[in-house]
Amino acid sequence: MKNKVLENIKNVRESAPLVHNITNYVVMNNTANALLAIGASPVMAHAPEEMEDFVRIDSSLVINIGTLSFSWIQAMKKAMACAAKLKKPIVLDPVGAGTTPFRTQTVRELVETAAPAIIRGNASEILSLRNEAVKTRGVDSSAASSEALETAKELALEWGCTICISGETDYITNGNETLSIRNGSPLMARVTGMGCTASALTGAFAAVDPDPLYGAFSAMAVMGIAGEIAAERAEGPGSLQLSFLDALYNLSDSDISSRLRAGV
Amino acid sequence: MKNKVLENIKNVRESAPLVHNITNYVVMNNTANALLAIGASPVMAHAPEEMEDFVRIDSSLVINIGTLSFSWIQAMKKAMACAAKLKKPIVLDPVGAGTTPFRTQTVRELVETAAPAIIRGNASEILSLRNEAVKTRGVDSSAASSEALETAKELALEWGCTICISGETDYITNGNETLSIRNGSPLMARVTGMGCTASALTGAFAAVDPDPLYGAFSAMAVMGIAGEIAAERAEGPGSLQLSFLDALYNLSDSDISSRLRAGV
Amino acid sequence: MKNKVLENIKNVRESAPLVHNITNYVVMNNTANALLAIGASPVMAHAPEEMEDFVRIDSSLVINIGTLSFSWIQAMKKAMACAAKLKKPIVLDPVGAGTTPFRTQTVRELVETAAPAIIRGNASEILSLRNEAVKTRGVDSSAASSEALETAKELALEWGCTICISGETDYITNGNETLSIRNGSPLMARVTGMGCTASALTGAFAAVDPDPLYGAFSAMAVMGIAGEIAAERAEGPGSLQLSFLDALYNLSDSDISSRLRAGV
Repeated sequence: MKNKVLENIKNVRESAPLVHNITNYVVMNNTANALLAIGASPVMAHAPEEMEDFVRIDSSLVINIGTLSFSWIQAMKKAMACAAKLKKPIVLDPVGAGTTPFRTQTVRELVETAAPAIIRGNASEILSLRNEAVKTRGVDSSAASSEALETAKELALEWGCTICISGETDYITNGNETLSIRNGSPLMARVTGMGCTASALTGAFAAVDPDPLYGAFSAMAVMGIAGEIAAERAEGPGSLQLSFLDALYNLSDSDISSRLRAGV
Repeated sequence: MKNKVLENIKNVRESAPLVHNITNYVVMNNTANALLAIGASPVMAHAPEEMEDFVRIDSSLVINIGTLSFSWIQAMKKAMACAAKLKKPIVLDPVGAGTTPFRTQTVRELVETAAPAIIRGNASEILSLRNEAVKTRGVDSSAASSEALETAKELALEWGCTICISGETDYITNGNETLSIRNGSPLMARVTGMGCTASALTGAFAAVDPDPLYGAFSAMAVMGIAGEIAAERAEGPGSLQLSFLDALYNLSDSDISSRLRAGV
Repeated sequence: MKNKVLENIKNVRESAPLVHNITNYVVMNNTANALLAIGASPVMAHAPEEMEDFVRIDSSLVINIGTLSFSWIQAMKKAMACAAKLKKPIVLDPVGAGTTPFRTQTVRELVETAAPAIIRGNASEILSLRNEAVKTRGVDSSAASSEALETAKELALEWGCTICISGETDYITNGNETLSIRNGSPLMARVTGMGCTASALTGAFAAVDPDPLYGAFSAMAVMGIAGEIAAERAEGPGSLQLSFLDALYNLSDSDISSRLRAGV
């Protein structure tokens, strides 16, 4: 599995996939910088007039509903429909699903519009996809990632996608196979948009790995390892944010090999 | 007064209040990060469809008119009306009020929609609330904070709210009682959105202190002290921005006790 | 030419020109911070209701089409028309022109609305202004800056403006006279919005130098020199971003004099 991550990082750096993000206002800068740091090429564009033209050149599409509004949902649907038609992998980040009916409903409409290759969220968000009674607290999860694993497996099989549950342990499952990662640092939760950044990186890896399970796994491995390298150097969440980008940029094969804590 | 600040910081860190921001595009990332660094839980959401659902779980609501537009004003009004109904404290940051009639007028409409618990602005912005002849220069104030103090006291009594005027000296008044703080660093003015961050932190403290005067005072104390700690370490506005978040995160009781320069 | 740059930096720092940006969501924070760091005063505002009021107090107007949408185009046109009427210099950054017909067409409409004093873009973007067959890859250029120089000269003469082509070598031309700069660092391409920041700084210098050729030249000199100072200290794109702001803030006459690599 280490070799898969190493190969995928190499491929991202060599091919610089064009990762198209329709994401929230809070994290646009961070996610663009994370994509650049790992070697991908970010695009942020949401005008319906150019959706088809962009999707045609995209390597992958990342949809993130953080600062949702009606007009952006239209852009997301249009982009997702184009991506499905052109067989470009879609990553969906259902930020805050379960918190308001508007979000939960929007996520369902998006999934019906086009099947994502990968859905990445925290436990509360993943549980909300199944109409489970969810305890959410704003956009943060109040459930442990393991609590959403059974739901994730069922949904992954039903929708034919890979689901990634972020948390202290990350789970990545396609319903048949489940991988886990225990990298990262608690300090990452004190930087806004780290989950959104994970989804953006997932877009980069989904573009180079035909198997979404290993694409998502590689992204979460890179995320966690760069995060823990950054946390070792950081004096707080401010310095973590910049050290994280430096760590992504400088991430070496031996960082991956020596640090990856993965399970099956 | 020091004890009040210490108690409020402890309460923010323990209860992690959900601070809902409808704010401007420029500072969303900074203000979310500042709230996370101090221990609060930020939410950024503006869709009318989910305003009521969010306000129901909010601990406080922060309205900031930095990058104003018609549709966002509608969201602000809806959120403020819900917050008033549900008795959630509202913090209003009238960015650039006095600069254009559109802003001045919008602030008045917002205040009429629902009474804020706290209004925080620079001297020009506060003066503009009273229709004073204001000299503004873009979004920066050209008046000293003391010049707006009489106006602030009158408005605070009239509207039954607390008004905080930021500047070299910060004044916080409810009309009857006036507090002042002389912390901070001139370098903070070279980082965009420091005023907006002050308003966001005010939202966190308004959520834990039933008295808006002491909530606002605590926020400005934390802001100024973290800012001056950061400025001591910074080599310019770039490093100030990250050191500020680290300082907020690491802020200790002794930092507060040894540095607070407050007056009555 | 060094003296021109030194004089312009001094003027920006002394007069703190009000640079009004209608720009993209990704870079608003960076560009505001870069303007503050060099000593200018940034404003971000896009509501049609206040466009005329803002343009009246603006020192210059920067239009950047990064995250384009219909309603923002209306704001851009209104602001540009006002700026033309009030003779305020306009800087246009045609982000991604050539990538989609929507962008290419929008840039043409903007240029027809009001003649920019300066257009700054990468080679692909500049070539697209002339309907050249352009190879673009998302928002990044796949052409060297020199490849767009002849087109830039023709357009500059035809439209009566200055055109700046960013790249490893930057070219600045008004059609009759052409300047070049070879400062900067490849690491800058790994930070999102560095081109947008160059355009914002161009707005600051266009406000103090009546000759757009030297305004644009000064901005690119400052950009490149601050970028290479920052790159020398940075361990990656994260630390580059903050060191860049520190370098802009601390930029000295001797930094300019000893580092500027300019050609005619």
